[in-house]
Amino acid sequence: MVLQFDLLKTEGLARRGRLTLNHGVVQTPVFMPVGTYGTVKGVMPRSLIEMGAQIILGNTFHLWMRPGLDVLRQFGGLHRFEAWDRPILTDSGGFQVWSLGAMRKISEEGVRFASPVNGDKLFLTPEVSMQIQSVLNSDIVMQFDECTPYETKGVPTTEADARKSMELSLRWARRSQAEFTRLQNPNALFGIVQGGMFEHLREESLAALVELDLPGYAVGGVSVGEPKDEMLRIMAHTPHRLPAAKPRYLMGVGTPEDLIEGVAQGVDMFDCVMPTRNARNGHLFTRFGDLKMRNARHKSDERPIDETCRCHACASGFSRAYMHHLDRCGEMLGPMLASIHNLHFYVNLMHEVREALDGGKFATFRAQFAADRARGIG
Amino acid sequence: MVLQFDLLKTEGLARRGRLTLNHGVVQTPVFMPVGTYGTVKGVMPRSLIEMGAQIILGNTFHLWMRPGLDVLRQFGGLHRFEAWDRPILTDSGGFQVWSLGAMRKISEEGVRFASPVNGDKLFLTPEVSMQIQSVLNSDIVMQFDECTPYETKGVPTTEADARKSMELSLRWARRSQAEFTRLQNPNALFGIVQGGMFEHLREESLAALVELDLPGYAVGGVSVGEPKDEMLRIMAHTPHRLPAAKPRYLMGVGTPEDLIEGVAQGVDMFDCVMPTRNARNGHLFTRFGDLKMRNARHKSDERPIDETCRCHACASGFSRAYMHHLDRCGEMLGPMLASIHNLHFYVNLMHEVREALDGGKFATFRAQFAADRARGIG
Repeated sequence: MVLQFDLLKTEGLARRGRLTLNHGVVQTPVFMPVGTYGTVKGVMPRSLIEMGAQIILGNTFHLWMRPGLDVLRQFGGLHRFEAWDRPILTDSGGFQVWSLGAMRKISEEGVRFASPVNGDKLFLTPEVSMQIQSVLNSDIVMQFDECTPYETKGVPTTEADARKSMELSLRWARRSQAEFTRLQNPNALFGIVQGGMFEHLREESLAALVELDLPGYAVGGVSVGEPKDEMLRIMAHTPHRLPAAKPRYLMGVGTPEDLIEGVAQGVDMFDCVMPTRNARNGHLFTRFGDLKMRNARHKSDERPIDETCRCHACASGFSRAYMHHLDRCGEMLGPMLASIHNLHFYVNLMHEVREALDGGKFATFRAQFAADRARGIG
Repeated sequence: MVLQFDLLKTEGLARRGRLTLNHGVVQTPVFMPVGTYGTVKGVMPRSLIEMGAQIILGNTFHLWMRPGLDVLRQFGGLHRFEAWDRPILTDSGGFQVWSLGAMRKISEEGVRFASPVNGDKLFLTPEVSMQIQSVLNSDIVMQFDECTPYETKGVPTTEADARKSMELSLRWARRSQAEFTRLQNPNALFGIVQGGMFEHLREESLAALVELDLPGYAVGGVSVGEPKDEMLRIMAHTPHRLPAAKPRYLMGVGTPEDLIEGVAQGVDMFDCVMPTRNARNGHLFTRFGDLKMRNARHKSDERPIDETCRCHACASGFSRAYMHHLDRCGEMLGPMLASIHNLHFYVNLMHEVREALDGGKFATFRAQFAADRARGIG
């Protein structure tokens, strides 16, 4: 079996589903912690299990650079290498080479760039991306695509350029699928809808991808520097148009509010570096708004980060004063506990969303969530 | 009760004991992980519990700087602040202000120095050290002492200077005891034997300290830059002369071999930053010799750090190749797992020593340990 998706329940556009993959079952909507280099930064796998993480990401580009394919092939893929036996999704590397900016050159064939690790000249194509992801043996493989920028040097991408980019991604989708098939990869390949901020380009992209009959679809090219209202416009337009019988993945989004909005628009899967990256900067998410641990007002606060939270950081007697102290001293335990807390918040938020959907109470949950977050934490 | 020490068994000079403190029982010989700023670097308290750590250290000087006494007083001491309910030993701050070098000035009264955190002019005396340690409410309080350097600018300390320094520490011991008593500190104060590399000075120091009838004694001023044979000479001379009915603590020592040698010389308690500091540099201790994770030979090694080790890092499927990868990528999980492994090695080594002593087989254990370590790890 490659992938099975069961749509269990809907409420408006919101969906409650179950995704069965080669390494296990994923209840949706789901948040997927990001493990770029084969580790979710600062978090032990067992902590991910404890918080209920069902599936994590790996970054094809980074893992290709280090540890490299020889090592990953020897380990039979990423799962054993990083000691994680639940499902894994890998991106295609497209977004990362695109992020290299001036250091890369994009052509019809693929992307030429110099390795940021050792300067080696490298060439990433749809075929190479599929070959790497086959070695990684990730449960969900993403097509190689070009991420259409929102703007270049302050100038928003024109419709003509967005079309060119979207059409290139489509041709790369077909090449990805052909190579994925040739490699007899036993996992599931997802297509990525592009089209920038142009609804009709998004629709064209989607229609062409649907013809490929892939087992899942993603919305890419959001959260790439566009204003919030532009992102919300695309989130309101595209996700619910993806095939209803297949899982829908909104790439790289976002804040807790963005996730709830995404669910309301019919998204099943999310990933974002925000919980771990913000944790390392002392930015903690809670049900009642966010906390900046660096703020001196926490200096002698005996309360846990969030009294209603059941994560290891909140339930083990660590106070805000202690978190503030760890941050101030640059002690590793600070980001370690903060990362657990933030990831738990994101993972658990989706757990609560699933419960709400199961009970037909997502609308109520959504309203309560907005009110709680706006209340602010004392 | 302040402190109770029960000597359970001896083998040669080596001792098997049980130390009862206000926050619990400590089986000796024991290794105490160092938690300078109220955290054992990179290790969660629950990991310390899992590996069997019985007592940890805190550094008075650092905790005085950050978070400061107001916060620690509010939390009723260090235990609740750092979420650790087993015993804690705190040093006196003497070694840390001594380490400031040119930035401090030592007089009969105490040590004047500028805060390395904010430049404030501070004055640490035996009385202030006792006051801080009372706020910390550590189970074992160390007297304020002057650490006699092995050498200054390449010139070994003369006997005259070592005597002056040792006698100053003695006067500070008396002042420490007087202030500790005045404060009605409910915990246990340890004296520290100084005297540099001079056996008769060590004996004078010890004789005078014994007159104070303190509940425990430490050997200080070793592992301060002296050659190994000098350290071994003092280790062979001083520890077994400390009162047999009271716990003996060898401060700041050392390698796994040093610990075994210390036990053989009658030491009950050890602390050292080596397991955690070396872990952060990719230096791993094992029963069969040490491993440098940065070495390229580990790049594709599928074995755990040590196949015979039961620590979380070795027992959870993390390979040497993965540890090498984490180190190379500068990922936090590398030092996190390495610190758990190294601390587990030290803590478990003392556990095995206790079992050997219980069975009257310490000599056999010691010989096997030396042979195993010399064997080298494949």
